[in-house]
Amino acid sequence: MTGNKLRVAILGASGYTGAELVRLLSRHPHVTIVALTADRQAGKPASEVFPQLVLADLPNLTRIDEVDWSAVDFVFCCLPHGLTQEAVAKLPGHLRIVDLSADFRLTDLDAYATWYGHAHRAPELQQEAVYGLTEVNRDKVRKARLVANPGCYPTAAQLPLIPLLEAGLIVADDIIIDAKSGVTGAGRDAKQGSLYSEVTEGIHAYGIASHRHAPEIEQGLSEAAGKPVIVNFTPHLMPMSRGILSTIYVKLAPGATVDKLRAMLSERYKGEYFVRVLPNGAAPATRHVRGSNFVLMSVHADRVPGRAILMSVEDNLVKGASGQAVQNMNVMAGFPEETALEQLPLFP
Amino acid sequence: MTGNKLRVAILGASGYTGAELVRLLSRHPHVTIVALTADRQAGKPASEVFPQLVLADLPNLTRIDEVDWSAVDFVFCCLPHGLTQEAVAKLPGHLRIVDLSADFRLTDLDAYATWYGHAHRAPELQQEAVYGLTEVNRDKVRKARLVANPGCYPTAAQLPLIPLLEAGLIVADDIIIDAKSGVTGAGRDAKQGSLYSEVTEGIHAYGIASHRHAPEIEQGLSEAAGKPVIVNFTPHLMPMSRGILSTIYVKLAPGATVDKLRAMLSERYKGEYFVRVLPNGAAPATRHVRGSNFVLMSVHADRVPGRAILMSVEDNLVKGASGQAVQNMNVMAGFPEETALEQLPLFP
Amino acid sequence: MTGNKLRVAILGASGYTGAELVRLLSRHPHVTIVALTADRQAGKPASEVFPQLVLADLPNLTRIDEVDWSAVDFVFCCLPHGLTQEAVAKLPGHLRIVDLSADFRLTDLDAYATWYGHAHRAPELQQEAVYGLTEVNRDKVRKARLVANPGCYPTAAQLPLIPLLEAGLIVADDIIIDAKSGVTGAGRDAKQGSLYSEVTEGIHAYGIASHRHAPEIEQGLSEAAGKPVIVNFTPHLMPMSRGILSTIYVKLAPGATVDKLRAMLSERYKGEYFVRVLPNGAAPATRHVRGSNFVLMSVHADRVPGRAILMSVEDNLVKGASGQAVQNMNVMAGFPEETALEQLPLFP
Amino acid sequence: MTGNKLRVAILGASGYTGAELVRLLSRHPHVTIVALTADRQAGKPASEVFPQLVLADLPNLTRIDEVDWSAVDFVFCCLPHGLTQEAVAKLPGHLRIVDLSADFRLTDLDAYATWYGHAHRAPELQQEAVYGLTEVNRDKVRKARLVANPGCYPTAAQLPLIPLLEAGLIVADDIIIDAKSGVTGAGRDAKQGSLYSEVTEGIHAYGIASHRHAPEIEQGLSEAAGKPVIVNFTPHLMPMSRGILSTIYVKLAPGATVDKLRAMLSERYKGEYFVRVLPNGAAPATRHVRGSNFVLMSVHADRVPGRAILMSVEDNLVKGASGQAVQNMNVMAGFPEETALEQLPLFP
Repeated sequence: MTGNKLRVAILGASGYTGAELVRLLSRHPHVTIVALTADRQAGKPASEVFPQLVLADLPNLTRIDEVDWSAVDFVFCCLPHGLTQEAVAKLPGHLRIVDLSADFRLTDLDAYATWYGHAHRAPELQQEAVYGLTEVNRDKVRKARLVANPGCYPTAAQLPLIPLLEAGLIVADDIIIDAKSGVTGAGRDAKQGSLYSEVTEGIHAYGIASHRHAPEIEQGLSEAAGKPVIVNFTPHLMPMSRGILSTIYVKLAPGATVDKLRAMLSERYKGEYFVRVLPNGAAPATRHVRGSNFVLMSVHADRVPGRAILMSVEDNLVKGASGQAVQNMNVMAGFPEETALEQLPLFP
Repeated sequence: MTGNKLRVAILGASGYTGAELVRLLSRHPHVTIVALTADRQAGKPASEVFPQLVLADLPNLTRIDEVDWSAVDFVFCCLPHGLTQEAVAKLPGHLRIVDLSADFRLTDLDAYATWYGHAHRAPELQQEAVYGLTEVNRDKVRKARLVANPGCYPTAAQLPLIPLLEAGLIVADDIIIDAKSGVTGAGRDAKQGSLYSEVTEGIHAYGIASHRHAPEIEQGLSEAAGKPVIVNFTPHLMPMSRGILSTIYVKLAPGATVDKLRAMLSERYKGEYFVRVLPNGAAPATRHVRGSNFVLMSVHADRVPGRAILMSVEDNLVKGASGQAVQNMNVMAGFPEETALEQLPLFP
Repeated sequence: MTGNKLRVAILGASGYTGAELVRLLSRHPHVTIVALTADRQAGKPASEVFPQLVLADLPNLTRIDEVDWSAVDFVFCCLPHGLTQEAVAKLPGHLRIVDLSADFRLTDLDAYATWYGHAHRAPELQQEAVYGLTEVNRDKVRKARLVANPGCYPTAAQLPLIPLLEAGLIVADDIIIDAKSGVTGAGRDAKQGSLYSEVTEGIHAYGIASHRHAPEIEQGLSEAAGKPVIVNFTPHLMPMSRGILSTIYVKLAPGATVDKLRAMLSERYKGEYFVRVLPNGAAPATRHVRGSNFVLMSVHADRVPGRAILMSVEDNLVKGASGQAVQNMNVMAGFPEETALEQLPLFP
Repeated sequence: MTGNKLRVAILGASGYTGAELVRLLSRHPHVTIVALTADRQAGKPASEVFPQLVLADLPNLTRIDEVDWSAVDFVFCCLPHGLTQEAVAKLPGHLRIVDLSADFRLTDLDAYATWYGHAHRAPELQQEAVYGLTEVNRDKVRKARLVANPGCYPTAAQLPLIPLLEAGLIVADDIIIDAKSGVTGAGRDAKQGSLYSEVTEGIHAYGIASHRHAPEIEQGLSEAAGKPVIVNFTPHLMPMSRGILSTIYVKLAPGATVDKLRAMLSERYKGEYFVRVLPNGAAPATRHVRGSNFVLMSVHADRVPGRAILMSVEDNLVKGASGQAVQNMNVMAGFPEETALEQLPLFP
């Protein structure tokens, strides 16, 4: 800390989550950004990579091995999946870290190896890391040195499902998550499938029954249900930059009703700044959380007896990535949790 | 018929389905458009309502009561739901009609009254009308005087489900249809919810458990299953003009497999020009049928044992409305079914 | 003022500029919103009109004649053009006002009558009002009771042109402003021309040689040039919600060079928080100011000898409307000018 | 020719112009596609590169050196700029060719070297090639062996300007072309700048005073004016896939009027199928030519005395590329010029 300011470094700052961290942290009263790394773009001003950042006062991009770690208190790691585990393993021990990759999210070593195709290269860190779904794991996050920031889809799916499974209000083996995401979820790499003309004015599903966020979701739901849970998780690519909507089809447990589900979620989240349960009849829209760290959720009756529909929306780059990362940093550093995250959504 | 040309009138031609009929019929070698009605815009050239039609040779818009029916052989009716039944009842008996509204789709008088809030005002026509899901009802369509053109969502949902229910390969009481549609489905009326800035870059569900296409879908599925079927049908509004994707979650019947489902659909549709079943591993995208009358469908394994995922895409204004209407006209008039509908999709 | 908070009312709060004021003011440390009026929606919670506002703590919508003006210090008026002049004339004298309509922008009574088709109904207020182009009229704004907030196009066009005309670096009678705007500039009223499917994936010009922002631009440029200036102003509608780009084609005055123009603008705006002149070679993009009050501008050489190209971008709802309105309020109230407007742009 | 069918090969078929040629030619009654080349994708079915082509009956992709030229009559060359000249030089002499690259558009060897940075590698072909702006050069195109298909921007700019310059109705040294294009103009290569999230909901200019279409435009205008013409050409990237709008600011020649300009263009193009001059007051929109080979143009008065505004729109992939290429093939082969190009635009 320098003059009460937490000195923050962002590793892998040239992607969308890095820029989003800068956007949010630039108005954080207790934080100063002291390093931005991007190995292939080292030496450039940040505004060359993200022209909108010409409006902020930022250090130039550097190589990760050029960072003076003695002048850094806190690290956000936005490196690609796979590279992250080794990079984090090399960081000095005084640093506290929120990692936005998938490298430390799965706690089961075998599950990691199965889904990622290789044994974890920093298994002790994998065991140490705390899964940073803030509203669920706040107490563990507070004391953590290394937080694995949740994936975008898993955040939107788990927030409504975990409390209902914990309360036994829904059946654990009949959960269908039809998820719809904006394109920034695919990152800033130049890929043909992410080109404007390939994405605009059309939709499709991808990663059907094979997306790596499935085991992450199942890990959280299994813990909540107290038994192994397998879900249908079907992601779809939407012609929009930001936003995730999860439409979740569930079976009511005996005695449960739609109203009980809604009441239960309302009660669970009533003290949470960032999670709002909508009243009966209202359905959430992604555009109503755009650019913000809020999650809106709702519960709906199904025409099919004994079933219900859950919906949740978030901005995948904020609550689904950089915003929740800042939220976790706030918790870890003892700042008010909503600091730098109070801005209302940008609509229209 | 005049000189071998079928003389066609389009009623309610100032909306999107009307313009789409003009687009398709303008290249039909056996059709001539002799009347376009739009009561509130009577007297205007068609190109004032749709500037792209400046490129076609078309009659001016007229009032419906000014049409000389003796010079008309065939009518496409694009009037609003509710108004249609009385308008169609007044048409001379020599006309053959494809109605694009919902007025004649439900065959059950009580179901109509329940979902539309009033008794049908032309019940005998409701009984006469043939439901024009061409690939399913071709023989009845051929001889029909009045065809009720299917809704956009029901077309996309029924084409994959009907054969599987008929074959008993899926369980009838566990069908979840997560449907995603472009904005043109809401028509051309000026509504705040359809404004560009309200729709772009965001998504939401609507009509949850209450959309009028649910009973239409259930009518077809019940007939296929041989017993009453109730489905979950959850439509979502997408930031795109055209296209519907149905992601359908089903439970396999005992003995059924994903491969059997795919093989069954491939066999069922192998002679159909407009319906294509994709090979294992491929998922359809709406942009790949844009502007065309094609339907692409696929079958996918689910990680949850005993379940499968079906997908189908169509252009809601073509196969989901005006294209299927032309297809039905071709069948009724004895033209080759694909006439004027062969154009490949417009992508990008 | 209550407890150091400026008590603010927003009249006509159900449109986009009203919602944008709420978004910006919700994080203003020295402001409290005490009234939101929308006559046709009186009684509703703000979140019924703008669901994203469920996240803010706001008064319900009321009728304008129900506001207790004794509890209000400051008014933002977002009423429609034409209605505004009479509404403002009725407001108590202790209120300070920023009016976002066009009613008080033209100082010449005849010009108003010519462009708006009727004599002004509050001519004394028209004379009193200060034109709130903050960077140009800051001193007058500071003392004003009534500020006419500039139009979106005029803000983007005047900021680069006024200094150059004042310095005599460009020729006054050869200015072509090719302006490109997002759809929110047309407001939230349900109009067919603003429907998603009418706007997406296409562009066109409108109001050619007849847009009411032309005389507003010319008024400012004439004052800067010291003689009457007539410009070519050609607005185009873009398939995007927010943003204006002005591409301005100018003729260099004798002795002027592109570098001199850029140096002059850089010097003029070097102390301004919200206006940035880009270095040689960089061109501004609207997405890089989205959601922010910043203006980026640039100067480019033209292949045609003796000519130059100016570009400027802004968010039409922020610097082009509600943001500049808050900026003016800050100036009028003596708050730091950037208060509540420091947030970086939202990109992607 | 085989059985009256022209046997066509498309070289470089994996890009957007290649796919667009397939779309258009698939309904051409006198053409059969016998070869599609794409060296890096050789062996794949066309539908793997463009899934919408699953609906057509097409040969697999091959390497260019595997084509049996004896079975080919006509070649469309969609290879990248620079590579094309050598590829075309190697083709057997019996082939007639429409080249869609920029390699043969400039007739001046020095201009080519200046703008492309190297001497032309097939200068004799450069001299032989006919510039395929069909409405201007139809007679030369008819007899040509090698046609250089015009660029997208040059087509939209030259069609309104050439007749006016030939007639001496506008001043040649004061032409400003503010051009706005969809993203497909940048091709299908994976580039960060073409990603959906970098393009959607925003606009910017690029290639200011340095775009290679400037000399191509100037070549045509100079010939029309009978003297060297230099223009301001400023292209802008639009958040849309298809479409170009040219807003052209011109100075009237002595004695010329806006009405004379419009009358002149109407007269010039009255027999042309694909070019329409709009009546006074109407402005063209790109969406009204989407997917079609049509060009709409208009002439408008300017508030600045002595000036006028021209507008033209086209689909950059059709009249700006593949459509005009087919039009040229039709002319070369003696087919009716509009064959396979009659389809009305796709709107909405």
